[in-house]
Amino acid sequence: MHEIGTTRLEAFSDGVFAIAATLLVLEIGVHTVGGAQLGHELRRIWPSYLAYVTSFITIGIIWINHHHNMRAIERADRTFLFINLLLLLDVAFIPFPTKLVAEYLRGSGEGAAVVAYAATLLLMAVLYTLWWRYARTGRRLIAPTVSEGDLRAIDRGFAPGLPLYAVVFVLAFFSPLAAVILTLVLAAFYLPSATLFAER
Amino acid sequence: MHEIGTTRLEAFSDGVFAIAATLLVLEIGVHTVGGAQLGHELRRIWPSYLAYVTSFITIGIIWINHHHNMRAIERADRTFLFINLLLLLDVAFIPFPTKLVAEYLRGSGEGAAVVAYAATLLLMAVLYTLWWRYARTGRRLIAPTVSEGDLRAIDRGFAPGLPLYAVVFVLAFFSPLAAVILTLVLAAFYLPSATLFAER
Amino acid sequence: MHEIGTTRLEAFSDGVFAIAATLLVLEIGVHTVGGAQLGHELRRIWPSYLAYVTSFITIGIIWINHHHNMRAIERADRTFLFINLLLLLDVAFIPFPTKLVAEYLRGSGEGAAVVAYAATLLLMAVLYTLWWRYARTGRRLIAPTVSEGDLRAIDRGFAPGLPLYAVVFVLAFFSPLAAVILTLVLAAFYLPSATLFAER
Amino acid sequence: MHEIGTTRLEAFSDGVFAIAATLLVLEIGVHTVGGAQLGHELRRIWPSYLAYVTSFITIGIIWINHHHNMRAIERADRTFLFINLLLLLDVAFIPFPTKLVAEYLRGSGEGAAVVAYAATLLLMAVLYTLWWRYARTGRRLIAPTVSEGDLRAIDRGFAPGLPLYAVVFVLAFFSPLAAVILTLVLAAFYLPSATLFAER
Repeated sequence: MHEIGTTRLEAFSDGVFAIAATLLVLEIGVHTVGGAQLGHELRRIWPSYLAYVTSFITIGIIWINHHHNMRAIERADRTFLFINLLLLLDVAFIPFPTKLVAEYLRGSGEGAAVVAYAATLLLMAVLYTLWWRYARTGRRLIAPTVSEGDLRAIDRGFAPGLPLYAVVFVLAFFSPLAAVILTLVLAAFYLPSATLFAER
Repeated sequence: MHEIGTTRLEAFSDGVFAIAATLLVLEIGVHTVGGAQLGHELRRIWPSYLAYVTSFITIGIIWINHHHNMRAIERADRTFLFINLLLLLDVAFIPFPTKLVAEYLRGSGEGAAVVAYAATLLLMAVLYTLWWRYARTGRRLIAPTVSEGDLRAIDRGFAPGLPLYAVVFVLAFFSPLAAVILTLVLAAFYLPSATLFAER
Repeated sequence: MHEIGTTRLEAFSDGVFAIAATLLVLEIGVHTVGGAQLGHELRRIWPSYLAYVTSFITIGIIWINHHHNMRAIERADRTFLFINLLLLLDVAFIPFPTKLVAEYLRGSGEGAAVVAYAATLLLMAVLYTLWWRYARTGRRLIAPTVSEGDLRAIDRGFAPGLPLYAVVFVLAFFSPLAAVILTLVLAAFYLPSATLFAER
Repeated sequence: MHEIGTTRLEAFSDGVFAIAATLLVLEIGVHTVGGAQLGHELRRIWPSYLAYVTSFITIGIIWINHHHNMRAIERADRTFLFINLLLLLDVAFIPFPTKLVAEYLRGSGEGAAVVAYAATLLLMAVLYTLWWRYARTGRRLIAPTVSEGDLRAIDRGFAPGLPLYAVVFVLAFFSPLAAVILTLVLAAFYLPSATLFAER
C-alpha cells in the first residue's frame, strides 16, 4: 500500500480547479450606486471582466494540461502528492490577486495588484514544472506504455510556460495592463497550441 | 494522444454547473435591519427570490441539455475544448447579473440590470449553439453509432434557444420584469419540452 | 434516448449537496470588534454555531437518504428531473435562512428568521415526498429487482418527514429556539433511525 | 440494503474536502486602501497568507489520510456515516477560524483567534480518531483482505495526531504565532511521514 493510484488525486484536483474557476465571479462587485448610474458603473468596471476572463481561461488551460499530463503518470508517491497539493494551493489562491486586479487596474495601485497577480501565476508555472520534472526524471512515476517520444513531446509543451510567465512578471512592473492582456493571450492562444503542437 | 476523451470534460463541466448554481444563494442578502422589520424585509426582497429561482432552473436546464448532447459526442479536439471553456466561463458568470437583478429589479436601474442579465444568457445561447454546430458539422466529433435522425432531433432541440433568448434580450429594454419572467417560463416549461419532443 | 440514466443526476445532486453544506460556513461572521473583545464575541455568536450544525447535519441526512432511495430508481424522465431540480433548488437555498437564524436568533426578529428557516425545510420535505411518490407510483421509475417490501420500507422511512417538519414550522411561530433545536434533534437522531429501522 | 457501500461516502467527502480548501481564499481580504498603499497593505497582511497555507495543507493532508484509510474499509453503517458527517462538519468549519487567525494574528485578540483555530483542529483529530476506532474495533467495517499488520500500521499512523493537536491547543494559550507555525510544520512534514513510515 506504499504507492497510491492517481484516481483520487485527479478527483481532488478536478474539484479544486472547477471550484477556483467558479469562485472568480464572487470577486466582481459594483459599488453601491443609485440605480440611474448602474449602466455607467457596469461599463466602468471593465477591468473586472478582463480579470475574470483572464483567470478563468488560465485555470481552464492549467486544468486541461494537468489532465493531459496525468495520462502519462500511473502512480503517485508522497513527494508527488505534496507537490500537487502546493500546485493546487497556488491555483486556489488565484481568485485573490484576480480581485486585486479587478479593483485596482487603471488606477493608483495597479502596479502592486498586477505584480501580485503575475507572481501567483509565475509560482504556478514553477510548481507545475517541478511537478512534471519530479514525475518524469528517471521515469519515476511514468507508465511503462508511454514512449520516450511522448515524454519529450510533453517536455516541449512545458518548455514555454515558465519563461513566458517570467516575462509577464517583469512586464507587470512596467505596464500592468499589458501584463494582464499578455496573460490572457497566452492562455487563449499560445499555451494550448504549444502543448498540442508538441504532440506531433 | 491528439484527441481527448470526453470523461474529464464532462467532470469539469459538471463541477462548474453545480457550483455556479449553488453559489447563487450567496447573492441574496438582507440589508441590515432592526429585528422588528425582518419580516417586512423578507417580503420586500422578492426580486431576489425570483432571480434565484430563474437562474437556478436555467443553469439546471443547460446542464441537463449539455449532458444530453454530450451523449452524441465521442471525442473532443482543441477547438471544442476551448468553446466549451468559453461556455462554462459564461455560465459561471451568471451569479453576477443575477445579483444585479436581485438588487435593482422594481427600482431605478432595473433596465441596466436586466439587460446585463439577458446579455449573459444570450451569449450563453450563442456559445452553446456554436458548441453544437462545431461538433456536428460534417459529424466532426460525433460517435458513429448516432444516426442522422438523432442529430436532426438534437438540431430541432437547439433551434428555439437562440431566437428565444434574443427575444428576452430585446424585451429587457422595454419591460425588465417581463423579461425575467419570460426567462423563468422558458427554463421551466418551453426549453425542456422542446429538447425532448424533438427526440421523437 | 428518451429516458435518461441516473448517473449524471446523482453526480449533479451530489455536487449541490456537498457545496450547499460547505457554503454554510460563509454565513458565520463576527462583527468587527476590537481584539480584546474577540473572546467574548466568539461566545456571543453561539446561535451561528447552532444554525451551522443544524443545517449541515440536515443537508447531510437529506443527502444520505437521497442516495439510499436512488438505489431503488433505475431511470429518470423529464418530470422526475424537474422535481429533482426543484428539490436541489430548495436545498441550495438553505444557507440563506441559516444566515438569518445565525444573525437574529435570541434577538428581536428571531420569529421571522426561524419561520423562514422552517418554511424552507418544510418545502424541502414536500418536494422530497413528491419526488419519491412520482418515482414510486405504479413503479414508474423503479428497478425491477426492487421488491414491494423494499418499497414499503422506503415508504415508512418517508412517512415521518413531512409531519415532523410541519411541527417544526408551527413551533417556529411560538418558540423559535425550540424549533431550531427540534430540527437539530430530528436530523441527528430521529430521521436517520426512521429510515433505517424501516428497512427491517 | 442495510449496509451501505463506501463509494458515495467517498464522493461526498471528496467534495467537502475540496470545497472547504478552495473556499479558504475568500477569507483573505485587503482593507480598502488608497492605491498608493496597496503594496504596503499586501505585505502587512502576511498572517492571512500564513493562515491560508496552513489550513490548505492541513485539509489536504486530512484528505490524503482519509482516502488512505478508506481503502481498508469496505462498508459503512449508520453510526459510521454519522461520525463521518461530524468529521466533515468540522473540516468544513475550518475556514471560519482561519479567517479569525488571518485578521487577528499579531494584534490584540490573537489569543482568542488561535485558540478557536486550535480547538477546531483538535476536535477534528478527536473525531477522526473516533472514526477509525469505530471502523477498526473488532474489524467491524474492515475488508477481509486487509491484514492485522496493515491495521496496526494505520494505528501507528493515527497515534501522533491527537497528542500533537493537543500540544498545539495548549501552545495557543501561550504563543499564538508559534501554535500556527507548529500546525503548518505538522501538516507539511510530520503527519504525512508518520502515516507513511508506519506502512513499512
